Amino acid sequence: MNAPPTPRLRLAQRTARIEPFRVMELVKRARELERAGRSIIHLSIGEPDFTAAPPVLQALQRAVDAGATGYTAALGLQPLREAIARHCGESHDVELDPARVVVTAGASAALLLACCALVDPGAQVLMADPCYPCNRHFVSAFDGVPVTIPVGPESRYQLDAATVAAHWRAGDDRVRGLLLATPSNPTGTSIEFDELRRLVELARERGGFSLVDEIYLDLSYGQRPRSAVALGDDVLVAGSFSKFFHMTGWRLGWLVVPPDLVDSFEKLAQNLFICPSALAQHAALACFEPEAMATYRERRDEFQARRDYIVPAMRELGFGIPVEPDGAFYVYLDCSAFSNDSAAFAAQMLDQAGVALVPGMDFGHHHPERHLRLSYATGLPELHEAVRRLRTWLAERGGAAAQA
Amino acid sequence: MNAPPTPRLRLAQRTARIEPFRVMELVKRARELERAGRSIIHLSIGEPDFTAAPPVLQALQRAVDAGATGYTAALGLQPLREAIARHCGESHDVELDPARVVVTAGASAALLLACCALVDPGAQVLMADPCYPCNRHFVSAFDGVPVTIPVGPESRYQLDAATVAAHWRAGDDRVRGLLLATPSNPTGTSIEFDELRRLVELARERGGFSLVDEIYLDLSYGQRPRSAVALGDDVLVAGSFSKFFHMTGWRLGWLVVPPDLVDSFEKLAQNLFICPSALAQHAALACFEPEAMATYRERRDEFQARRDYIVPAMRELGFGIPVEPDGAFYVYLDCSAFSNDSAAFAAQMLDQAGVALVPGMDFGHHHPERHLRLSYATGLPELHEAVRRLRTWLAERGGAAAQA
Repeated sequence: MNAPPTPRLRLAQRTARIEPFRVMELVKRARELERAGRSIIHLSIGEPDFTAAPPVLQALQRAVDAGATGYTAALGLQPLREAIARHCGESHDVELDPARVVVTAGASAALLLACCALVDPGAQVLMADPCYPCNRHFVSAFDGVPVTIPVGPESRYQLDAATVAAHWRAGDDRVRGLLLATPSNPTGTSIEFDELRRLVELARERGGFSLVDEIYLDLSYGQRPRSAVALGDDVLVAGSFSKFFHMTGWRLGWLVVPPDLVDSFEKLAQNLFICPSALAQHAALACFEPEAMATYRERRDEFQARRDYIVPAMRELGFGIPVEPDGAFYVYLDCSAFSNDSAAFAAQMLDQAGVALVPGMDFGHHHPERHLRLSYATGLPELHEAVRRLRTWLAERGGAAAQA
Repeated sequence: MNAPPTPRLRLAQRTARIEPFRVMELVKRARELERAGRSIIHLSIGEPDFTAAPPVLQALQRAVDAGATGYTAALGLQPLREAIARHCGESHDVELDPARVVVTAGASAALLLACCALVDPGAQVLMADPCYPCNRHFVSAFDGVPVTIPVGPESRYQLDAATVAAHWRAGDDRVRGLLLATPSNPTGTSIEFDELRRLVELARERGGFSLVDEIYLDLSYGQRPRSAVALGDDVLVAGSFSKFFHMTGWRLGWLVVPPDLVDSFEKLAQNLFICPSALAQHAALACFEPEAMATYRERRDEFQARRDYIVPAMRELGFGIPVEPDGAFYVYLDCSAFSNDSAAFAAQMLDQAGVALVPGMDFGHHHPERHLRLSYATGLPELHEAVRRLRTWLAERGGAAAQA
């Protein structure tokens, strides 16, 4: 005899405001095609095709051998906090007190922690549209209101102070702060540093916070990266070992917090997480050794070479890339020369050309139907093959590329 | 020239309702004493003195060699979800659909996820006092109201249905659910299974949830552990690789969710965490191999032997232990024969006897001043030495032990 069906539990209202990653349907379809024997080129996932540098794996082994697998301090291992602060000094030319570094389970936990600490129910947080989808949802998870502001090529697909000032009048207490990401996922564009300074100053004048996602900062091409840490002790900055250091599945990142709030963040981190992964922390210490850093810098140059190939190649196929991406490993393509239904277009591209790109809809509401995100976190040979396939496919589709 | 000091950012109001672990002060003091050359016996931290079993470390090595360090599915590796479900069947005699298993970054992330999904602002969640301090704070993190209900030896330091019914009248919509933990931290006592069934039925009748923390379930002594999974598809159950499997710093656990809510939990897990540690997941698969399970069962027996030593020994010293602890590695000691200020008493015990116990204040508001938590997650020789030191110290203090 089966038990009678139990009634459905009532979910918290915030769950209705948090959306699934719709791209997962496309990823599932891609896997089905592969299982059916099709060759698929994945330009969809934001995950480097590299793994951690050899010294990191050696450091992991040493930590395992030493049995260093217990809980660590909630703020992270002191030597790792110091190493992150030193990295900020050496790579971004700004002094950072290690006491301000909170080591976290990826930038995800850093942003979660920051929103828990700063976002009251109903408080508005301004961010660009398009942006990384989780950024909206971290705010929603704490019952804040993510206010997405449409941005386009004229502002490098980023917020600027003039636009923010129009949405956040002096004295408007409903807005609590800014969530910025530079370089940006999905656009690969960064905020110019003077503009970033104006944004931070504006938030400060309004009595709000600036939370800056810099997880792609070390994947900046062309100019030396500058961190928002330099813009004041009150700026919160999220970093990650996932992207530049290629440790995605290790789940390790950090959050730089104001010095007077370290204790508050410590108690939140204690209660919400206990601590980040001990093994990942011990291993990550080796990221900053000269040999590992040399490897990571070479790989960054490889990403840059991929960008230098893929951007003109996609333009030549007829996609619009009005702003040269200067960081991360993303290109935000305007596909309106071919379609005004990017989701259907991406599905056809996958089925017919065997190339997986992400349609714009996960990233916001500002013309997602005419955008695709391309991730060049995959090798040049695959990128060449993808371009070859797309050229053939677009030609067969009816010469739209020729119009563009 | 220094920049002018920046104004303090406004914290979200919930941060004021989340308390730091006050025991950390005691832990810091213990470390200072050790640095000064003193021998300290730590009976304070809830962390096994064992590390992961050898097959787990070998599985980690294989995963590293295979480069299996990328993102996994948000719900976790499918083979691990299946292994956890099988473990539930083999060790707790209840069939569990692997599709209901969400792998998380420790039970911390499991409880965080559950509260995000189920606790609206202002919603009350009932729990025992004393209880694990983070349980209150997970609810507070999502602006729910943790309602702690004083419990004592008469109910095994646990909630029972009669007590809960007095706090949660039929039709009282302010209460959203129950957060239970069995065996309990800090008391080491479990809820009898028939009582657990009554509690779950009561919550169900009231239209609320039952969230059961079972992270110590496999450290049950005397009788075969039974999981709340058996009490209905609507019960949420948190598990962990930290305690029985001795993988604390790896940060890996799980949450069993109702089948109709898997999609909702998946989207929350995607957005809040991306995924749990890939390496920890690959390694944890080996926990369920016969060799590893044999090791873990031997270690469980070792914990039981420690309990069998320490409980009568502490009673003989004059501490009150009115309910025999039957799980985890904790004893909740009534120290009122010696002191009604357990914090001061613990500080003196540390300074004068070199034994570190946790005063009750972290665990709630119900007579914390007359309780101490002893963790026997340390070896029998240390426990013998701790008892020897305490016997001497208490005798020197003035014979209070003789009164008891």
